[in-house]
Amino acid sequence: MNTRKILLAESDIPTHWTNIVADMPNKPLPPLNPATGEPIGPEALAPLFPRALIEQEMSGEALIEIPDEVRDIYTQWRPTPLFRARSLEKALDTPAHIYYKYEGVSPAGSHKPNTAVPQAWYNKQEGIKRITTETGAGQWGSALSYACGLFDLTCEVYMVRTSYDSKPYRKLLMNTWGAEVHPSPSPRTAAGRAILEKDPDCPGSLGIAISEAIEMAAQSDDAHYALGSVLNHVLLHQTIVGQEAKKQMEMAGEYPDVIIAPFGGGSNFAGLTFPFLSDNLKRGGKVRCVASEPASCPKLTRGIFRYDYGDTAGMTPLLPMYTLGHNFVPAPIHAGGLRYHGAGVVVSQLLKDKLIEAIAHPQKECFEAGILFARTEGILPAPEANHGIATAIREAKAAQASGEKKVILFNLCGHGHFDLTSYETYLGGKLVDHELTQGEIDTALADLDTPKID
Amino acid sequence: MNTRKILLAESDIPTHWTNIVADMPNKPLPPLNPATGEPIGPEALAPLFPRALIEQEMSGEALIEIPDEVRDIYTQWRPTPLFRARSLEKALDTPAHIYYKYEGVSPAGSHKPNTAVPQAWYNKQEGIKRITTETGAGQWGSALSYACGLFDLTCEVYMVRTSYDSKPYRKLLMNTWGAEVHPSPSPRTAAGRAILEKDPDCPGSLGIAISEAIEMAAQSDDAHYALGSVLNHVLLHQTIVGQEAKKQMEMAGEYPDVIIAPFGGGSNFAGLTFPFLSDNLKRGGKVRCVASEPASCPKLTRGIFRYDYGDTAGMTPLLPMYTLGHNFVPAPIHAGGLRYHGAGVVVSQLLKDKLIEAIAHPQKECFEAGILFARTEGILPAPEANHGIATAIREAKAAQASGEKKVILFNLCGHGHFDLTSYETYLGGKLVDHELTQGEIDTALADLDTPKID
Repeated sequence: MNTRKILLAESDIPTHWTNIVADMPNKPLPPLNPATGEPIGPEALAPLFPRALIEQEMSGEALIEIPDEVRDIYTQWRPTPLFRARSLEKALDTPAHIYYKYEGVSPAGSHKPNTAVPQAWYNKQEGIKRITTETGAGQWGSALSYACGLFDLTCEVYMVRTSYDSKPYRKLLMNTWGAEVHPSPSPRTAAGRAILEKDPDCPGSLGIAISEAIEMAAQSDDAHYALGSVLNHVLLHQTIVGQEAKKQMEMAGEYPDVIIAPFGGGSNFAGLTFPFLSDNLKRGGKVRCVASEPASCPKLTRGIFRYDYGDTAGMTPLLPMYTLGHNFVPAPIHAGGLRYHGAGVVVSQLLKDKLIEAIAHPQKECFEAGILFARTEGILPAPEANHGIATAIREAKAAQASGEKKVILFNLCGHGHFDLTSYETYLGGKLVDHELTQGEIDTALADLDTPKID
Repeated sequence: MNTRKILLAESDIPTHWTNIVADMPNKPLPPLNPATGEPIGPEALAPLFPRALIEQEMSGEALIEIPDEVRDIYTQWRPTPLFRARSLEKALDTPAHIYYKYEGVSPAGSHKPNTAVPQAWYNKQEGIKRITTETGAGQWGSALSYACGLFDLTCEVYMVRTSYDSKPYRKLLMNTWGAEVHPSPSPRTAAGRAILEKDPDCPGSLGIAISEAIEMAAQSDDAHYALGSVLNHVLLHQTIVGQEAKKQMEMAGEYPDVIIAPFGGGSNFAGLTFPFLSDNLKRGGKVRCVASEPASCPKLTRGIFRYDYGDTAGMTPLLPMYTLGHNFVPAPIHAGGLRYHGAGVVVSQLLKDKLIEAIAHPQKECFEAGILFARTEGILPAPEANHGIATAIREAKAAQASGEKKVILFNLCGHGHFDLTSYETYLGGKLVDHELTQGEIDTALADLDTPKID
């Protein structure tokens, strides 16, 4: 009997988050105050985040200690298993060895609780009572609802309307953990009202929902805001995924040639790849790190590197990122978690420096990959996760063509139990691929008046 | 940091299923041919099941070897974790130690794949192309769909209409693995048509769906039928759960005082308890084994021990069981998997001999328990699983009252990701408890003309 799962003990849960910034040859450019054009200091973020997280956001330290209470909660689902995808390999008839780290075993069903739990905990320590946030597909909103439930914090979620309408179970899941969920754009905020006035049927976007959640948090002394991706501290918290995976690959007696993860804002990708990328940067390792994005929201492969807002209303500091422009509203594809106009600052700098790669997939290819995965490995993946599987399958097919014995590792970042209507659309032959033209991208970027980067 | 999860290696997956029949002081009475009243032989089951499963059904051997190919598929999710419910204990402020075996990590989200995989495999070995079955809540249908997908068998599922309508995601999940799903009663079978003629809006029941699935399988040479509970071989396959749990409790340095599992037909209960019950029977152990059933379908606590049909149309052999009568249609409670009129033969004999116990819970108590569990332990349980949690909480509260340091073990048999509309009903204050009167039970049993048991 061949081993499929490589498991760690709870004592193997990392004691520190690892900060890639310490190893980067070119450090990320600073966020700017949009009014002054000057780099912002910690005080600019104080209305939204607890002090400890702002320190992490700006830190260049290589290691940041994980509080014991957070590690204790991590034991509810961590360490997560690493699987050898033996049945998928067989179906593909590939000489490649395919591994996947499975983050769907968390209570919320994705990697997102890795950062939701410490974010909720640090807020609790500072006496905060309520946390606002946005959610696209619902993975992040679920994770924060779960984490707030554990620490008796109120969780207020602005959920992109297209997801809110198509995923009633996601909303209900958040409710079971005690959260309030509002469709975004909503009439509760000035940002939401302004958009609804122009377009009462607006399907929403992550950028809009972020504007609403920030507005609500900024108004209130005992409320803070939490973000599920993009920011440095969020990416940092996810590095426990890659640290565990490194240990598990060692136990398997292999080292990956290529590491793949779906890409929305970058936290999932950073979580798995950064601990390996550190080896590249510090020890001359050669592993390829590939971000898988949807062809309909291709900021990494077709966007520009420029300062831009993190939200639609322009309430955040300006961040140096690959972006399609903060007014870009992607087609309502089923991988809602990947419908974000920009990329995290650290990941953007790494891509700019050619230290990582990116690839874009049409959604039909992703669902085809997801169904093959479900019928071989058993687990039904989230539509976001299907992007990583699609890249892994392309790599495995290339290995088959060349006869190369490649080792592939990807992040199966979540299950698709709340995404079944999208599978229904695919299985019913009704899924369409949205072809994004260069004209559409040019239009989205044309009115961008944010600072350029040389 | 205190350990929460006790994990085993894949090499710890049991090599044999353990057969409680070998240890029973009173062996189960034989199934009878309804026409002759005589015990049936293996040939009576041949149109429905492969030979290997019929042998297991009738076996008195203590150990039955698990085929290597089945153990290999088990590694897709087994061994499952045993959790110490530290956060729940804290919330209850109980001196009791509470453990739960979590079967929701399987691809289908419950314990059901433990038997679906071997059933599909044995059928595949005998050249069968198509398997028919019924499903209530959808857990069993999902499990068999998953297993059939792995072995390239067609899976035809008759799903109780009330579940089919209220759980569209369950149906879609089965579809992603390639299964056909029909609401039951359906016009596809004589049994279904007869019921629809009398009551076109019939909500269905497991008994009716079984009749339909059996009828379809019996008509066709390359089709067989598969059942998800009740029968001896199904209970047998689940004993890997309890075998693993015994090892894990040993690793935790404790032995349970009471073991609890939700009860529909008995497979979940048997799976966890039988390996411990064996210790009671062979070595004078004293662990209490408690079956948790819904108050609205209380065959164990208010039914009678008598020969009865396994289905509604009377197509099965007569089985000696605790039953509410095969015409009993329980209220449409949300724990659809527990809406079955009868109990497995082996479990029934054990209850008759007072070797196990049973308790009935109203559904509101169960949902309250489930929400407390979700907000402490994180995992959202299936409504069926909530029954076991409700019993565990009653035991823990009793321990708190008496100050007794009791060790409680229960089976968290599945997650509730496809059951969120039932949580919506509960959270919205709309859940009602159906009070089942003695008159209703008497009526259901009154026209039973099956053989009595002294």
